[in-house]
Amino acid sequence: MARTVKHPEVRRAELVGAARSLFFERGYDATSVDEIIARAGVSKGAFYYYFPSKGAVLEALAEQMAEEAAVNIRPILTDDTLNGFERLQQFLRLNQRLKAEQAPETLALFEALFHPQNLALHHHVFTRVSRVMNPIMATILQQGMDDGSFLPGDPLAIAEVLLGISSTTHEAVAGLVGADSEEAFKAAAAAFQRRWLTQGVIADRILGLPEGSTEFVEPGFAEAFFAGWRQARAQRSATRGNFAEDVDRF
Amino acid sequence: MARTVKHPEVRRAELVGAARSLFFERGYDATSVDEIIARAGVSKGAFYYYFPSKGAVLEALAEQMAEEAAVNIRPILTDDTLNGFERLQQFLRLNQRLKAEQAPETLALFEALFHPQNLALHHHVFTRVSRVMNPIMATILQQGMDDGSFLPGDPLAIAEVLLGISSTTHEAVAGLVGADSEEAFKAAAAAFQRRWLTQGVIADRILGLPEGSTEFVEPGFAEAFFAGWRQARAQRSATRGNFAEDVDRF
Repeated sequence: MARTVKHPEVRRAELVGAARSLFFERGYDATSVDEIIARAGVSKGAFYYYFPSKGAVLEALAEQMAEEAAVNIRPILTDDTLNGFERLQQFLRLNQRLKAEQAPETLALFEALFHPQNLALHHHVFTRVSRVMNPIMATILQQGMDDGSFLPGDPLAIAEVLLGISSTTHEAVAGLVGADSEEAFKAAAAAFQRRWLTQGVIADRILGLPEGSTEFVEPGFAEAFFAGWRQARAQRSATRGNFAEDVDRF
Repeated sequence: MARTVKHPEVRRAELVGAARSLFFERGYDATSVDEIIARAGVSKGAFYYYFPSKGAVLEALAEQMAEEAAVNIRPILTDDTLNGFERLQQFLRLNQRLKAEQAPETLALFEALFHPQNLALHHHVFTRVSRVMNPIMATILQQGMDDGSFLPGDPLAIAEVLLGISSTTHEAVAGLVGADSEEAFKAAAAAFQRRWLTQGVIADRILGLPEGSTEFVEPGFAEAFFAGWRQARAQRSATRGNFAEDVDRF
């Protein structure tokens, strides 16, 4: 069979796609560059032509997923029947729905980011996602400032603060990922839920909304979100016999 | 002369001290591990016993400087003649004074953190400093919430948000450090000043204070702060003939 010559962008996308499915099935840590190469059907040289490391693939994948989310969000920005506050609410609801639907996949991909040795990778991934999401949030804020829904201010700076709060939850997520008993898990989930609650309180005050207007997540979301991931992790571990000890941790 | 046996903590402190004076004189990038070793009068083996890299020394130094600042700040926390809002003001004024006094030294130390390739190092340094400063800010907020100066809330989460905003100014500082004309420098300083202004607006709203109450820095601070560093950099460059081209950049 003749060797197919592919456009560089196509080959790059295939590598990201292969990594995505493998990270989802096995987790980031348990996936090797060799396995990504095998599934994508490319040479090692081709892999390293596009990506300096496995971490760089994860960064590209995070950006791709943020772009996919952005495609779903953009119609909200152009819906002229909504005022600024309604746009913000729709944006947060959609975000929460996407998070909930993709919880097992997302967490399998990103679980590794919450190990202390991966702090730099976490930072890079967060930076890539922010570059997509911050301008969208800033647009919503600008629209709401223009129509009087929100107090005036610097929309991009405020967007960075509101979305940046998520980056300060690193330790809370690390607690959840590392929880080694049902009790520790419930405590970590409650701490996480409190952080999201505070994020809403802070948003209300910055934007000049009545307390309780901005709801980043619904009550009980953190526990449900991470329970889905635990279940998926247990299934992954059961499939790979050598990681079966993970199942017993809960 | 008999070899002096020193306590490990003493030797570690000597290494950090030697690095501090060298980073200040020459800048972080222009200082090598060999020079730190020579000035501290220890062996290479001893250096690597304490620190895996030059970056790790910078992290330790940042934590040390944060601890030194904390020593100056703590009396504010225990001054019973102040209410919570007055404590916050004193804290911010002291912070600004320390920043202004130490501008040339601090920026010589940390200039390198704003190169894109040092993003991870920047993140680690910021994390170390936050571990010292966040609990201090949280204590001030808790005191102010208790005495009715501030709206109630989660003091540690709010402290993380208020101090964390500084970490989102990475790009603004990078613009200043990389400015290659007087015009670019003034524009970057103005952008930075705006970010600090927004930080004050956000703090006022989160804490429930009248607009303009919280002033992270005075008008013109950014330009004065970075002008001091430019002057010191020009002097450093003039001393080291091989970096004289830096002088011509302004």
